Amino acid sequence: MAGLPGMVSLAGGHPDPALLPLDWVREGLHSVLAETQASALQYGATEGLPALRDACAELLRSRGVLGGSDDVVITTGSQQGIDLLARVLVEPGDPVAVARFNYPAAMQSLRFAGGRLIPIESDAHGLRIDDLDHQLHASGARVLYLVANFGNPTGDLLSLERRMQLLDIAARHDVTVIEDDPYGELWFDKAPPASLAALNREAGMPARVVYLASFSKIVAPALRLGVLHAPADILRAVIIAKQSADIHSGTLEQRVLATMLADARLPAHVAGLRTAYAAKRDALVTALDCHCRHTLSYERPGGGMFVWVRTSPDIPVLPNDAWMAFGQRHQVLVVPGAAFSTDDAPQPWLRLSFAHPPAPALAIGAERLGAGLDALALAS
Amino acid sequence: MAGLPGMVSLAGGHPDPALLPLDWVREGLHSVLAETQASALQYGATEGLPALRDACAELLRSRGVLGGSDDVVITTGSQQGIDLLARVLVEPGDPVAVARFNYPAAMQSLRFAGGRLIPIESDAHGLRIDDLDHQLHASGARVLYLVANFGNPTGDLLSLERRMQLLDIAARHDVTVIEDDPYGELWFDKAPPASLAALNREAGMPARVVYLASFSKIVAPALRLGVLHAPADILRAVIIAKQSADIHSGTLEQRVLATMLADARLPAHVAGLRTAYAAKRDALVTALDCHCRHTLSYERPGGGMFVWVRTSPDIPVLPNDAWMAFGQRHQVLVVPGAAFSTDDAPQPWLRLSFAHPPAPALAIGAERLGAGLDALALAS
Repeated sequence: MAGLPGMVSLAGGHPDPALLPLDWVREGLHSVLAETQASALQYGATEGLPALRDACAELLRSRGVLGGSDDVVITTGSQQGIDLLARVLVEPGDPVAVARFNYPAAMQSLRFAGGRLIPIESDAHGLRIDDLDHQLHASGARVLYLVANFGNPTGDLLSLERRMQLLDIAARHDVTVIEDDPYGELWFDKAPPASLAALNREAGMPARVVYLASFSKIVAPALRLGVLHAPADILRAVIIAKQSADIHSGTLEQRVLATMLADARLPAHVAGLRTAYAAKRDALVTALDCHCRHTLSYERPGGGMFVWVRTSPDIPVLPNDAWMAFGQRHQVLVVPGAAFSTDDAPQPWLRLSFAHPPAPALAIGAERLGAGLDALALAS
Repeated sequence: MAGLPGMVSLAGGHPDPALLPLDWVREGLHSVLAETQASALQYGATEGLPALRDACAELLRSRGVLGGSDDVVITTGSQQGIDLLARVLVEPGDPVAVARFNYPAAMQSLRFAGGRLIPIESDAHGLRIDDLDHQLHASGARVLYLVANFGNPTGDLLSLERRMQLLDIAARHDVTVIEDDPYGELWFDKAPPASLAALNREAGMPARVVYLASFSKIVAPALRLGVLHAPADILRAVIIAKQSADIHSGTLEQRVLATMLADARLPAHVAGLRTAYAAKRDALVTALDCHCRHTLSYERPGGGMFVWVRTSPDIPVLPNDAWMAFGQRHQVLVVPGAAFSTDDAPQPWLRLSFAHPPAPALAIGAERLGAGLDALALAS
């Protein structure tokens, strides 16, 4: 439906194509082309191309995550990192703690491995630590998956205080924390607190933290490359699982990314993304303030790609197909909250993304959404 | 150890680097570079790039495997195809029928999914149908994984008669057949019989057959691309599993492969590989005939990359580490049969590969192997 003429989609989570570094990827391809030897066409190491592991280890060190090249494995997107960890850390029937509203493909991987999801409540400061403590105690979960920085769909940021508390609780309950960080570099107002992995390192490693970074948001999704940093025993198990998952990630794309990460332009590129996405966040939030202030409540996200909005009590809580019909009628697509819920029940929440459409379309989308919600409120 | 100076390795299963199509891949990269637009850097379809699905469907049709572009999914190497099928078709504790000696990473994927491997005996004509029938009956296995053409490690070819019998038995026992065909194009003396998938189609689809093809042997392993053809219900389940495994395979590499498969040079390239690997097979077998005829027995493989040799009764059946020590002493590496066995017990079998070393090294390797085996026989 997103492709229908005249439709504005606030539903997609894909990067803005205008912000993908086309010329830079072309340069990377060009230099790879110039240097390709037969050895580059052979099977490679499961752990990843040495040059890319080096560049990734350096990137992680710049984020305060300790580690040499031997402490990371290159994955076929950070999605594969989540999936391999699920296979390695979760046995059928195991409880796994996750935020109440979550990235659907992460929940799918955890469920494929047989995990039973234990939802943890969140608020504007991220996971609620009291609920986490309670649920870990009640369920006996030994794995926690979370996105601390501007996660999909809620866009919230886990505060520094809660990060410290979370590490303390994880250590106490012997919980392995999977910290998935695809959006951490996309902050708009101020940089997020240090990652759980970095804080854990500073504190002398009281907890077990696995850190996942993605290149889909800061470089390009098509490369399908991510990096996973984990304690040695988990890393060994992940590498064995990756051998049977795909032997290794594609070499040409690893080489292109290695040239790009070694390039001095990376920080300026990421800074440019921040500015551009911040402007799009502003365009959407300003328009929502104008057109939806009686029908929606929301926080202004400090980064990422999403505004998570709660519908007011006079808007009926609709099933997913009713939101499809709403989209068709009002020419604006949103994703109903049920898509992100640990259960599938209808929710008084919607996810709006400012990532893909240009700013004028965001304003039009918010206006149409407001008109449609007003009509729903009147009819109910 | 394969990298030690003076060492001859008959242990590796990697393609000969001299036979990898470097110039052609460079051309493919060049044309992809010339045509890369921002859309090529975005997330793509889980099923694969349309142009590559089209090319793969056409390739499979040329092999007699029915199907349009919608009947195939592009995988991150055929290893991922095996792994996704294991996740989709095998529940923890399920019996899965496989050849007694098998490709280790396939066994690993089936075991990761919780499969219990049921070994089927083979002879020079491939899987023994009487044993298959018996074991399927006794175990209740509903999945059979096999390589019908020159499989790793045995190099044997399933005869046409047995293929027909196997399909009949699979239909009767309601068994889904996973036909993995990485080596089918690498035939030396005459083309193999039609694939199980093709024969099943000709017979009106009495059995359920999934067909996997790899581009690692006929193009290059580094691209990590394969294709999977399956009945519609299995294909749907595989696509859902691939969403959580890696979302989609790398786009740049899919585009490079699509240009290569659409190129009229492909048949000549594959014919050249056949001639070159046949000459290497001859170099190894001739040298084995000369140096090992008292200590080893073997069939001359009709294709693929491996000679599977049985040690004579006066050679002790050694554990794996003893073959490492043997390799170090005699400067020739082989893989002991235990590495391919459904159990890990020492076997009177070795796998020799003629794929990677140049022909003169193959002759030297066989000579050293013969001398070493003579010494073992004398000492025992």
